[in-house]
Amino acid sequence: MKHILVLLVLAIGPEMVFGQTRARQAGIEIGVLPTGNLNAITDVVGVKVGQVTLHEGSEIHTGVTAILPHDGNVFQQKVPAAVYVGNGFGKLMGSTQIEELGNLETPIILTNTLSVPTAAEALIDWTLGQKGNETVRSVNPVVGETNDGYLNNIRGRSVTKQQILNALAQSEGGKVSEGNVGAGSGTVCFGYKGGIGTSSRVLPGKFGGYTIGVLVQTNFGGVLQVNGVPIGEELGQYAFKDVLDKSSDGSCMIVIATDAPLDARNLKRLAKRAMLGLAKTGGIASNGSGDYVIAFSTVNRVLHESPQPTAPATYLHNDYVSPIFMAAIEATEEAIINSLFMATTLEGSEGHRVEALPREKVLALMKKYGRLKK
Amino acid sequence: MKHILVLLVLAIGPEMVFGQTRARQAGIEIGVLPTGNLNAITDVVGVKVGQVTLHEGSEIHTGVTAILPHDGNVFQQKVPAAVYVGNGFGKLMGSTQIEELGNLETPIILTNTLSVPTAAEALIDWTLGQKGNETVRSVNPVVGETNDGYLNNIRGRSVTKQQILNALAQSEGGKVSEGNVGAGSGTVCFGYKGGIGTSSRVLPGKFGGYTIGVLVQTNFGGVLQVNGVPIGEELGQYAFKDVLDKSSDGSCMIVIATDAPLDARNLKRLAKRAMLGLAKTGGIASNGSGDYVIAFSTVNRVLHESPQPTAPATYLHNDYVSPIFMAAIEATEEAIINSLFMATTLEGSEGHRVEALPREKVLALMKKYGRLKK
Amino acid sequence: MKHILVLLVLAIGPEMVFGQTRARQAGIEIGVLPTGNLNAITDVVGVKVGQVTLHEGSEIHTGVTAILPHDGNVFQQKVPAAVYVGNGFGKLMGSTQIEELGNLETPIILTNTLSVPTAAEALIDWTLGQKGNETVRSVNPVVGETNDGYLNNIRGRSVTKQQILNALAQSEGGKVSEGNVGAGSGTVCFGYKGGIGTSSRVLPGKFGGYTIGVLVQTNFGGVLQVNGVPIGEELGQYAFKDVLDKSSDGSCMIVIATDAPLDARNLKRLAKRAMLGLAKTGGIASNGSGDYVIAFSTVNRVLHESPQPTAPATYLHNDYVSPIFMAAIEATEEAIINSLFMATTLEGSEGHRVEALPREKVLALMKKYGRLKK
Amino acid sequence: MKHILVLLVLAIGPEMVFGQTRARQAGIEIGVLPTGNLNAITDVVGVKVGQVTLHEGSEIHTGVTAILPHDGNVFQQKVPAAVYVGNGFGKLMGSTQIEELGNLETPIILTNTLSVPTAAEALIDWTLGQKGNETVRSVNPVVGETNDGYLNNIRGRSVTKQQILNALAQSEGGKVSEGNVGAGSGTVCFGYKGGIGTSSRVLPGKFGGYTIGVLVQTNFGGVLQVNGVPIGEELGQYAFKDVLDKSSDGSCMIVIATDAPLDARNLKRLAKRAMLGLAKTGGIASNGSGDYVIAFSTVNRVLHESPQPTAPATYLHNDYVSPIFMAAIEATEEAIINSLFMATTLEGSEGHRVEALPREKVLALMKKYGRLKK
Repeated sequence: MKHILVLLVLAIGPEMVFGQTRARQAGIEIGVLPTGNLNAITDVVGVKVGQVTLHEGSEIHTGVTAILPHDGNVFQQKVPAAVYVGNGFGKLMGSTQIEELGNLETPIILTNTLSVPTAAEALIDWTLGQKGNETVRSVNPVVGETNDGYLNNIRGRSVTKQQILNALAQSEGGKVSEGNVGAGSGTVCFGYKGGIGTSSRVLPGKFGGYTIGVLVQTNFGGVLQVNGVPIGEELGQYAFKDVLDKSSDGSCMIVIATDAPLDARNLKRLAKRAMLGLAKTGGIASNGSGDYVIAFSTVNRVLHESPQPTAPATYLHNDYVSPIFMAAIEATEEAIINSLFMATTLEGSEGHRVEALPREKVLALMKKYGRLKK
Repeated sequence: MKHILVLLVLAIGPEMVFGQTRARQAGIEIGVLPTGNLNAITDVVGVKVGQVTLHEGSEIHTGVTAILPHDGNVFQQKVPAAVYVGNGFGKLMGSTQIEELGNLETPIILTNTLSVPTAAEALIDWTLGQKGNETVRSVNPVVGETNDGYLNNIRGRSVTKQQILNALAQSEGGKVSEGNVGAGSGTVCFGYKGGIGTSSRVLPGKFGGYTIGVLVQTNFGGVLQVNGVPIGEELGQYAFKDVLDKSSDGSCMIVIATDAPLDARNLKRLAKRAMLGLAKTGGIASNGSGDYVIAFSTVNRVLHESPQPTAPATYLHNDYVSPIFMAAIEATEEAIINSLFMATTLEGSEGHRVEALPREKVLALMKKYGRLKK
Repeated sequence: MKHILVLLVLAIGPEMVFGQTRARQAGIEIGVLPTGNLNAITDVVGVKVGQVTLHEGSEIHTGVTAILPHDGNVFQQKVPAAVYVGNGFGKLMGSTQIEELGNLETPIILTNTLSVPTAAEALIDWTLGQKGNETVRSVNPVVGETNDGYLNNIRGRSVTKQQILNALAQSEGGKVSEGNVGAGSGTVCFGYKGGIGTSSRVLPGKFGGYTIGVLVQTNFGGVLQVNGVPIGEELGQYAFKDVLDKSSDGSCMIVIATDAPLDARNLKRLAKRAMLGLAKTGGIASNGSGDYVIAFSTVNRVLHESPQPTAPATYLHNDYVSPIFMAAIEATEEAIINSLFMATTLEGSEGHRVEALPREKVLALMKKYGRLKK
Repeated sequence: MKHILVLLVLAIGPEMVFGQTRARQAGIEIGVLPTGNLNAITDVVGVKVGQVTLHEGSEIHTGVTAILPHDGNVFQQKVPAAVYVGNGFGKLMGSTQIEELGNLETPIILTNTLSVPTAAEALIDWTLGQKGNETVRSVNPVVGETNDGYLNNIRGRSVTKQQILNALAQSEGGKVSEGNVGAGSGTVCFGYKGGIGTSSRVLPGKFGGYTIGVLVQTNFGGVLQVNGVPIGEELGQYAFKDVLDKSSDGSCMIVIATDAPLDARNLKRLAKRAMLGLAKTGGIASNGSGDYVIAFSTVNRVLHESPQPTAPATYLHNDYVSPIFMAAIEATEEAIINSLFMATTLEGSEGHRVEALPREKVLALMKKYGRLKK
C-alpha cells in the first residue's frame, strides 16, 4: 500500500504534472538575504526530511513529515533546541522537556491533530529500536500537528504507525517536496490549499556564514500578503470579511534548523522570530490557530551520557544573533508562500473543495504591484 | 479482567489488606486546616477517579489513573484549568493548549512514561465517541506520567488503550485507592515504594468554605521528611548520601481539583503552590524529575460552543486566594505521604525490589520526634 | 521652563510648520478594518494621553508620554492588563506584578532608558498623593522606555520628576501628538527619525463593535516596509546591508487599550499580536531591541479593596477574540508608520543627525508600487 | 554616618549584642550537606555584600543590602544569571532583560518597596561612573524589595541615593550581618521580626565541590516550621488561624550565588528550587507576597563587548545539577531561619511592635521535638 502511495506521489509530483513552481522561480524574491542552494531546510548540513503522503479516495488527505536533525542517533546525541508557542491552540507534544533541558532527543514528526499519539508511539518505537538505545526507558517524542479536518476525514485517524516509521526511514537530504504532501496533504491556508513549504537563508561570511533553514506546515488564515502585495484583499478572500467564522483558524507548525552555535536560550529567541515571518504573510494567529515554532542547532550536540560533568561548548555571543533572526523571518515568510505556490486544488472529505492559490491571478497582481522580478 | 487483576493485587499485597492505613489514621496530622470527609480529591463534588492496576508476573507493574472533573461531557463543558511545570523532565501532553485557552476539555490520565501516546489515543477515542461530540475534530488529550521503569518492564509498553478506556469507564466518586494502584503501581518515591496518594482540605466558611482536593503519582526523591521529621536521614536513605546517582530522579504528577471559583490565572498560581507541598516532604525536584501540576476548578464551566460572545462569570478576587493556596500545600504534602504509607513492598522487573516505607520504624521515629498524635 | 517647552511644541507643531500628515491622510490605508474617529489610542473611551517634550539645545531630545487607562483613581480601580515581552533587552518596570495579578494599578509612563527610575518615582508620588490613597504603601509603577541615546545626551538624565508629573497632569482625551514628541522626541526607527505614533480600529457590530487603540514609541530597525512596499530596500537603508552594526537595535514600546471585555489571559494573547504588526513594518526584534507590549481593558475594573470575595465579571469567550487580534495587528502597523510620517529631521547630541523619512520619495514609491490611495 | 547607624543598632538591639546566635550555633542543623566556612553567600569566592541600616527614631526602620557578584566591573564582565518569580506581587526591576540575555550587568540591590526607583537611580549612577563605562548608555539595574511598611514609615521614602551608593561602596567579602540590618531592618516574617539571613553549602568533591550561597530578605508568612518543628502551631501564631487577614503577605527576596558553571537555563532551574527551601520554613507564597529568586554564577563571565562572535564556555551537563539544587534548598531554608534568629524585637512606625522570634521558647520546642543538636 505504502509503495503504491509513494509511486502515486512521484507520478503526480505537482511540479511535473501541473507545472507548479516555487515562489522564487516565479519571480517573487522575498527578503534581502541570499538563499541556500536548495532554498530548503536541508541546506543545513545533516538535516533530513522524510514524507509520507496519503491521498486515498475522497476522504483521506493527510500524511506525515519527519525532520531529522542529523544522521546519527539523535537520542544519544541530542541537539540544542527550543520551542516557542505563538498561539497554543494545538497539541504539540514534547515542548516542556525541550524547554527544561534545552535539547531535542528525537526527530520531529508533523502530522494531523488526531494522529499525534500515533506519531509519538512511532517515535518511541523508533528510538527504543535504535542500536545503542537498548536500555533507554524514557523518550521525549516531539510531534507537531495542524488540523486537516476540512479536507481529510480526520476522525478516521488513518495515519498508521508504520507510515510514520516509513517517513523516518525515507528521510533524506536534498530537495524537499512541497505543497499537498506529507503533513500538508490536506491543509488549508488563507482559504487556499496550503501544505508543506520550505526555504533557507545563508548569511554572508561577515555575519558568520551560517545557514538557517525553515520548514512549515501551513493551515492558518488572516489577510494574505505575498511579499507585501495585498493578494487577500484583491481576491476578496480574507478573515472576517463578512462573518465571524473560524476560517482563519487552523494552525501553523514551523521548524527552524541552523548550524549557528546557538544555545537553547538564543534558539528560543530565534523561534520567536518565525512568527514575525508568519505575520508578513498576513497571518494573524487567530484564536483557533496552533502556531508553534521548534528551533534546533546542529552543533554543540549534547551527549545523553556525559562522561564528564562539564563539557566545553562554543556559543554565539548575543550581539551576533540579529542577522540569524532576520534570516529566520525571511525564510519563514518564503516557506509559507512556497507552501501556497506548490499546493494544488483538492477535493476532499464531505465534498469539500479547496482551490489552489490562483497562480495566474496572483502573478498578475504581483506584476501590477511591481513585485515580480524578471 | 479487571477483577482478576484486583484479586492479584490482593493476593500479593497482604500488608495492604491487613495493615495499611493512611498517614492520618496512623496519627500523623499534617497541616492546620481540616480535611474533607474522604480526605481525597473526590471530596470536590463531581470529581471522579478511575484506576486500572496491572501487576502481572514479575515484569509488569504499571497502570492507569483517570481523573474526571465532572460527570458531564467534559469536552462540551470545559473547566477552567492551568498547568504549572515544576520541573519539565517529563512528557505531559496537553499543557500548551491549557495554558493558551485556560481550560481543560478531557479527563486527565496518568500512566507510565512510554504509555502516554496510548493514553492520548484512548482519550481521543473516548471524546470522539461521546454523545454530542459527533462533529468534534480536535481534542486536547491531557496525559501525565512518571517513569516506573525500575519495577516495571516499561519498554514492554503493556498498557492498552482498552485499559485506559476501562479506567475512564470505572471512574467514580467516593474513596480513592492509594499505593501500588493505577498509575502508581510501579513507582518509587524517596527510595521506597511510591504510588497513588490523595488528600483534601475544606476551608472554614469564613475563608469561603471551598474544598481543595489533590491526587499524586509519586516517583521522585530527595531527603524524606514526614510532617517535618527527618525520616530519610534517620533511616540513612536519601539523595546524594554517597554517590551521584539518579535515585532522586523520577517525577511527580500532581492534580488539584477545587470548587473555588478561580480563573485560569489563579489556578496557575494554585498549581505552583503544590510544589511547596512537595518540598515539605523533602522532594528536591531533581534534574531528572518531571514534576507537573494540573489544577482545575469545577465551577465557571466554559461551553465549547458559546451561544453568546460574552458570558458572566464569578471569580474570586485575588485577595481571597491565599487560604486556598495553603490548603493545596497541605493536601499535596499529605497526599504524597499517603502514597508512601499505602504502598507495599514490590519485587518487579529484572529482580528489582523496592521496600515499602518501613512503617513501624517510621511510626517509632514519628513518636520519638513528638509528631505522632494519640 | 515647562511652559516654554510646551509653547515650543505648539509653535513648531510638526503638522502646522512642515505640513506633516499621518500615513492615512497621505493616502496609505493599512489593513481592512475601519479606524476610530481619531485613529488614536484615545478612541478607546476614557483613555487619556499626556506628553512632555524636551528639545533643549543640541544635547537634549527626550521626553515623557503618559497613558491613563481611565479618569478615576487607577490604583483603587485597577484595570485588567497583561504584558508580552517581544524581546526583553529593555528596562520595563512593573511587568511581573501585572503578570501575577492580571491588572494595572498606575498609568503607564514611557520615557528614555535611563529615566525609568525617575518616572517610577513620579508614579509613586502621584499615586500616594491621590485622594483615597492615603494609606497605600505599595505601588507597582509601570514604566517603559526606549533608548534615545543617539540623538539625546541620555547620560545627562535630563527628565525630571516634575516633568513626568506634568505629563500625567496634562493628559487628556482627543488628538494625540505624534512624531518627535514625548517619549519619542529623540528616537530613531529604521534609520529614520522615529517617535510616537498611534492608531485605532473599531470592529463592526457583528464582531462586537469594540475599539482597539495602540500607541507606540518607535526606536527599532530592520527592513522597512510601508504597507507592504519595500521602502527600506528601495532607499538602500536597512539592517545588515553592509556591516554587522547595531543600527537595527533600539526598542519598541507598544501600548494597547481596548474596551473589549478581555481578561488578563486574553489580553496577553492580544499583546502578543502587536508584534505581528511590528513585523509587517519590517521590524526584526533584533538582539538589542527591547520590544514590550502592554495591553489593558477599560472594562471589568478590579477594585483595590473588594468588599466581597467574589465579583461577577463578563468576559469574552475565546471564540470571539480573533477580530480583536486582527485589529491590534493593523493598528500597531499603522501606529508605527504614523510615528515615521509625523517625525521630523533632528540634529542632536554629538552632532548626530537623523533624517525624517523622506516623505516625497516614500510617497512616490508607494505610488510606483500601487499602494497610494486617491 | 554608617558607623553612627551601626551604633544606633547596637544601642537599640541589646539582644543581638549579648545573645543572638545563628540557628546552627544554637544547635539547629538544617539539611544534610556541609556549609561553607562562613555559612554565608560570601563563601562564594568574589561575592561581596554591603549593607546600610536605617533605624531613626520611631518611624524609620529600613535600609539597603547590596550584593556584588564579583570585584570587577560587572557591566563589562556580566555574569550568567536568571530570575524565577515565585509569586509576582512585587516590584523587582530588571527581570525581563536577565531572562532575555541570560546575564546580570549590575550588582543587586535589595531595599523597601517604595525605594526601588531610588536604588535603580543609584545603580545607574554607579555603573555610568565606573572606569571603563564612559560610553555606556544603557544599564539594566536589578533591584528587589519587600514591603517594610508595617514597622517603617515607608511612605516617607527615607532611603537616599547616597545611602545606596554607600552600601555598594562598603560591600565586602567575609561575615554578613543578619537580622534587622540593611534591607531587612524593618521586615516581618511569620509574624515575628524578620530581616536579612544568609547561609551556604559546599558540595563534596565527588559532586563537583561547588559552593552555593544564599542571602534572603524575609518579610512573608505562613505556618512557621523550624527544621520541621511546628513552631507556628506551638506558639499559636500562623496564617489564617482566625481571620482572613493579610498577615501572611509581605514578600521574600532570595539571591543565590554559585561558582558552579551553570548557564542561564540551569540557573533558572536553580532559582526555582529556592522556593522549595522557603516552603520548608512554612512559607505559603500568599497572594500578597512578592517572592523572587535571582541566581547567578560567578564563572563563564560574559564580556560586554565580545571581540569574537563566539566564545568557548564550560557548562555543567544537566545530569550533574541535582546536588546543586539540593544545596540551594537547604541554604535557603537555613538563611530564612537565620534571619529570624538574628532579628530582634522592634517597635516602629505608628507604635507597631513586632517581637523577635521567642528564642528560648523556640529552642525549648526544638528540644522537645528532638531537633536540637548538642
